[in-house]
Amino acid sequence: MSLHGGRIWERDDPRSWLDFSANINPWGPPAFAVEAAREALQWADRYPDGESRALRSALMEATGHDFRGIVVGNGAGDLIRALFASLRPRRFLTVEPTFAEYGDVARSLEIPVVSFRLKAEDAFAFPVDALCGAVGEGDLVLACQPNNPTGRAWALAELESLLAATIARGASLVVDECFFNLTVPHPGSLPKGPWPEGLFLLRAFTKDFSLPGLRVGYLLTSSRGAAIVRAFLQPWPINCVGEAAALACAERGVPFIEACRLRLAEARRRLTEGLAARGFHVFPGAANYLLCRSPLEGESLEKKLAPFRILIRRCHTFPGLDDGFIRLAVRSEEENGRLLAALDGLNLPG
Amino acid sequence: MSLHGGRIWERDDPRSWLDFSANINPWGPPAFAVEAAREALQWADRYPDGESRALRSALMEATGHDFRGIVVGNGAGDLIRALFASLRPRRFLTVEPTFAEYGDVARSLEIPVVSFRLKAEDAFAFPVDALCGAVGEGDLVLACQPNNPTGRAWALAELESLLAATIARGASLVVDECFFNLTVPHPGSLPKGPWPEGLFLLRAFTKDFSLPGLRVGYLLTSSRGAAIVRAFLQPWPINCVGEAAALACAERGVPFIEACRLRLAEARRRLTEGLAARGFHVFPGAANYLLCRSPLEGESLEKKLAPFRILIRRCHTFPGLDDGFIRLAVRSEEENGRLLAALDGLNLPG
Repeated sequence: MSLHGGRIWERDDPRSWLDFSANINPWGPPAFAVEAAREALQWADRYPDGESRALRSALMEATGHDFRGIVVGNGAGDLIRALFASLRPRRFLTVEPTFAEYGDVARSLEIPVVSFRLKAEDAFAFPVDALCGAVGEGDLVLACQPNNPTGRAWALAELESLLAATIARGASLVVDECFFNLTVPHPGSLPKGPWPEGLFLLRAFTKDFSLPGLRVGYLLTSSRGAAIVRAFLQPWPINCVGEAAALACAERGVPFIEACRLRLAEARRRLTEGLAARGFHVFPGAANYLLCRSPLEGESLEKKLAPFRILIRRCHTFPGLDDGFIRLAVRSEEENGRLLAALDGLNLPG
Repeated sequence: MSLHGGRIWERDDPRSWLDFSANINPWGPPAFAVEAAREALQWADRYPDGESRALRSALMEATGHDFRGIVVGNGAGDLIRALFASLRPRRFLTVEPTFAEYGDVARSLEIPVVSFRLKAEDAFAFPVDALCGAVGEGDLVLACQPNNPTGRAWALAELESLLAATIARGASLVVDECFFNLTVPHPGSLPKGPWPEGLFLLRAFTKDFSLPGLRVGYLLTSSRGAAIVRAFLQPWPINCVGEAAALACAERGVPFIEACRLRLAEARRRLTEGLAARGFHVFPGAANYLLCRSPLEGESLEKKLAPFRILIRRCHTFPGLDDGFIRLAVRSEEENGRLLAALDGLNLPG
């Protein structure tokens, strides 16, 4: 199993940490979502609706997508596994570095992984032509939008090229949009025209509504694609509390997200400036997290920030990155200020 | 996907139904579990501990089982899939009728199913000798304890024979004990001696603590078996609310379960008598549900009970059973009385 962010549970007094390693909206969860979850506890003695009809209806309303093409799962992680296990692609085409879970799942299912290296000297630009040229029949291509950990978003035109190539060759394209609502500027979403067979958009309530503890994600795809993935999931993929919170977010979440995106853009700008002034090179990106080259090795920085109970994400576990790279979530103005103040006390080189 | 009990969500005003189709402890959930779940909502903005260390420690305390041999999943359904997908048995050996999910999962993974028919005229006795004789290397044998929908419990000596045969042949034995705590008299649990490689006990908080809405199950097995199954699950299998409720049940649940088992034994005795007096043949069993031969066809009985907003489980979807068989959960004395009173109004034949 790869290292993931948010590993506070391996620390002493885990809930006291200020966690810059998990990329969660710092202004959530919204009260209406927690209240809906609380009320749903009265139904804990009933099986949830395994088909999640209420939630899928609300998602249909919110997205305009066909009800039959919506699949709900126990967080994006549940759906990533179900995608690979049910589609059983011939090969998995990916870029590196990216979210490690995709490749871990592919390898656990003995699906060959073909990866294209992103380079720091190119600002981690996507090798779209190489990817398009490599796609073959039965392959699965996955684009993390924006990419994790680099923070760079795929241009819509790049995704359109990928989609055209995958459709033309009889392959599948999965776009992981779990950070999508916290991406500024907003990159837009596929497809332009009618929904093509083989396209899957993966979303979650984890990051944008700050509900990683409740585990609800969903796929938008064709009704045929939905039936294939759903058949792999268990009869009751999400619980009553997660469903209620997600339903509230789907029905009432837009103003909350809009307000958070505005604050996030400003908080990101200021955190980026603050880090640059302290010797960090921050790579350009659009996400609610920043990939940085640190003036201190990640291991050393992590140790020095521990007395402040601040947790960062070292990136040496990502292919192509070494321990000079760290990833920092953009948190609230006050929390980012605490990080910058802690860095000021470290006597960083340069 | 097979028909499961508890399909109230396909009905109008689903929460108004008295549901005899799902086999849930009628006296739960305990207040301490719901309270723990409510308190856990404050941690919805943190990733859960993917390794469920607190819950597994409590289960270790409660069961005496090795911490490394405990795997937690998103309800028993999640673990059933993970078992089949990670062990990849050569064949799946089962009895019929039993819980349909096992065979569905095996078939979805293209694992050949070998089934042994249980017969009403033998009171659905288990063909232990035939099963033991058939087991071969790499097979997976599954015993639902007590069996669903027949309600008959495996004698401990029968399970010991099965275990000896599976171990001797290099196969795996899964005992599904999800109804175990509501079984009277208590059948006891494997193994007698040290834990053998290849034995898996499957349990959940769904039925005994009336928490089907929260989705938490677990496996007890060897540390090697646990690693194999865990590698198949996603990084965060259960959510913070389910984990908190399950932790409270594991730490504080024994007096609650003991009290419920006493009440259940009496409620089952009286419901059995009441049904027999109304022309139902109730098969002998030890579970918190009753398999009955009904004086009316299931379809007709279901329709006639609908105006009372009472839901039953027709059994025609189980191999070897026809629509003359129904399954009824044992509910509280008052609820069982409502069912019997409704039956009195139907002018049943015989």
